[in-house]
Amino acid sequence: MLVFNLLKIGASPSRDLADTLVRAWPSYTAYVVSFMTIGIMWMNHHAMLSRISKVDSRLLALNLFLLMGVVAIPFPTALVAEHLHGPAAANGQAQTAVVTYGLVMIAIAIGYASIWLYMAGHQAKLGARQVRVPRLTTLRFTGGNVGYLGGTLIALVAPQVALVIFGLLALYYLSVPLPDPDVPDDRELPEES
Amino acid sequence: MLVFNLLKIGASPSRDLADTLVRAWPSYTAYVVSFMTIGIMWMNHHAMLSRISKVDSRLLALNLFLLMGVVAIPFPTALVAEHLHGPAAANGQAQTAVVTYGLVMIAIAIGYASIWLYMAGHQAKLGARQVRVPRLTTLRFTGGNVGYLGGTLIALVAPQVALVIFGLLALYYLSVPLPDPDVPDDRELPEES
Amino acid sequence: MLVFNLLKIGASPSRDLADTLVRAWPSYTAYVVSFMTIGIMWMNHHAMLSRISKVDSRLLALNLFLLMGVVAIPFPTALVAEHLHGPAAANGQAQTAVVTYGLVMIAIAIGYASIWLYMAGHQAKLGARQVRVPRLTTLRFTGGNVGYLGGTLIALVAPQVALVIFGLLALYYLSVPLPDPDVPDDRELPEES
Amino acid sequence: MLVFNLLKIGASPSRDLADTLVRAWPSYTAYVVSFMTIGIMWMNHHAMLSRISKVDSRLLALNLFLLMGVVAIPFPTALVAEHLHGPAAANGQAQTAVVTYGLVMIAIAIGYASIWLYMAGHQAKLGARQVRVPRLTTLRFTGGNVGYLGGTLIALVAPQVALVIFGLLALYYLSVPLPDPDVPDDRELPEES
Repeated sequence: MLVFNLLKIGASPSRDLADTLVRAWPSYTAYVVSFMTIGIMWMNHHAMLSRISKVDSRLLALNLFLLMGVVAIPFPTALVAEHLHGPAAANGQAQTAVVTYGLVMIAIAIGYASIWLYMAGHQAKLGARQVRVPRLTTLRFTGGNVGYLGGTLIALVAPQVALVIFGLLALYYLSVPLPDPDVPDDRELPEES
Repeated sequence: MLVFNLLKIGASPSRDLADTLVRAWPSYTAYVVSFMTIGIMWMNHHAMLSRISKVDSRLLALNLFLLMGVVAIPFPTALVAEHLHGPAAANGQAQTAVVTYGLVMIAIAIGYASIWLYMAGHQAKLGARQVRVPRLTTLRFTGGNVGYLGGTLIALVAPQVALVIFGLLALYYLSVPLPDPDVPDDRELPEES
Repeated sequence: MLVFNLLKIGASPSRDLADTLVRAWPSYTAYVVSFMTIGIMWMNHHAMLSRISKVDSRLLALNLFLLMGVVAIPFPTALVAEHLHGPAAANGQAQTAVVTYGLVMIAIAIGYASIWLYMAGHQAKLGARQVRVPRLTTLRFTGGNVGYLGGTLIALVAPQVALVIFGLLALYYLSVPLPDPDVPDDRELPEES
Repeated sequence: MLVFNLLKIGASPSRDLADTLVRAWPSYTAYVVSFMTIGIMWMNHHAMLSRISKVDSRLLALNLFLLMGVVAIPFPTALVAEHLHGPAAANGQAQTAVVTYGLVMIAIAIGYASIWLYMAGHQAKLGARQVRVPRLTTLRFTGGNVGYLGGTLIALVAPQVALVIFGLLALYYLSVPLPDPDVPDDRELPEES
């Protein structure tokens, strides 16, 4: 549904097309950031669930909650694309749009943390393969939560700055994905004993 | 397509965005309830079909009928989100919207019951693994049908109450999913002999 | 995208909702017929391709052509739903809509026949399991092509009659699906020797 | 989402339907070309990734970039369909639309070339099966890039000619797909030693 936000750009026939396309740069930025975010989430989700061999009903429910957040991403993406600049950006509408984006990201981060904590606490029941939670992974989850929370607070006064933070978070997760348990990982910090 | 209903919220540019987003709470509620309902249905469907090792053309046809109902859920969801309150709620429009939602749910419940009854009556042909229909499962199906039927009738006079009933039904099915035949299940009531 | 046609029904807020929903019966009929048609096509496609163990580039191209027709089905479905009756049905618009529906169906039928004929003519190359083309299957393909061609011609004068024919064709294919090569089939007529 | 562009055709109820459908021929052409392009990309992508047995995070990131371009195809497709002829084609709007289409295609071609070069340079790490890059494949990638680049430049003066070039490129890739490593390929040119 992300591309649906792009389809709306060309639907206003009464203006100069080249000008319309250039002015729509927030839509392209939002499309790229959200697409990358969804892609990274999909990869992390796969890496996370490939550590266990069974699921129970509670994990399915947590998973459903997470998926509900990820599927909703096109909604705040459209808000940001349409209200980031131009006349609609007046009256704090850019702030409202980016704060909404941040709130959806926080909900998704909570979903990830819940699944990870549930998996860490029920390893035997779930047939988990990698039993210890590495320190780096804990740092990553904490960092993501703090980053999205901080970005959302910053969006109240400087929505453009918050968007840059969200973009940098996506780039970080893209360059340092969650380690796949199938491949030996030399990026892990030494673990607690 | 559920998120499409959310995308429409931000598309009215001439109003205050924060106010628009707050007033759209029925849309979020409808999104959450419908997403959870579709997710639970998907899980139950998987648990149901994992009991058999073969399908025949009649089961495929029943399955298609069920899927047709599930795919249609965004339609009554949008009706409820747009007509539950505000000026559009006058003249019994909220009642009409919630009754339509209930009718689609009843059709889906009939689809589930048909598949379950067909599977129970053709176990040898379908290579079913768990031959006895546990009493709890029968209760669940009957309870769901009665709940959605009762909610739809209540929607004729009190659509908000009916929506709460539909939400509680979703929460119940989420917390007590259909037992997966692959895992030993201690939630089953003693069966009839 | 089929449900998108339903979502448009509730989007006209200025009228009585119950009346709007009742008047939209062609949309529901079109949704049901098209959903069933797509579902049956999916099943037949699966049964057809499960007979071979290899694909080549020409079969992939034919398959792409077939898929292009199936994915387009929501387009003529929407035309029929919106132009079958009411003020828009005047000036032959119902005829135009149903003829368009029939033309898409004919294109899809040609796609199926092309794949089937290609498979029949390159069995060794494709590693086909069931080498003889049973007479009943040939009859089915011919019948479908004749039925959709005849229905499209009838739509030029009586679009409602043509829609009934298209619905009956869907019901026939639903009740007599293409035999799956994995299960012994007692519905086949004796084959030519 | 491609069919969404078709759904918009029938949504203008105030005109003669047959005339509307005939005038919409650029939409059908755009649908066919884009559907074929997406289908061929999907096939090539599959043939490319079936050569390796492992993925690393950088390949996943490149893959995500490629996918982002492919998913965006309905956007320039809609631009071309709506601005190719008629009153909207004045003022260079057809040029703008087709150039945008070409730019998206160039981005996708860069994505393919990046993945192919990365795979060729990290064969041991990725567990690649077919280690040498055949000359024909190199020619194909170079040809595609030159073709889309040239078409985009031509679109600045003759958008219709550029569209024909894009269509011919799609036909070429459809008739000569990337060789699948599982089947012996007699189309390959002798390789460099």
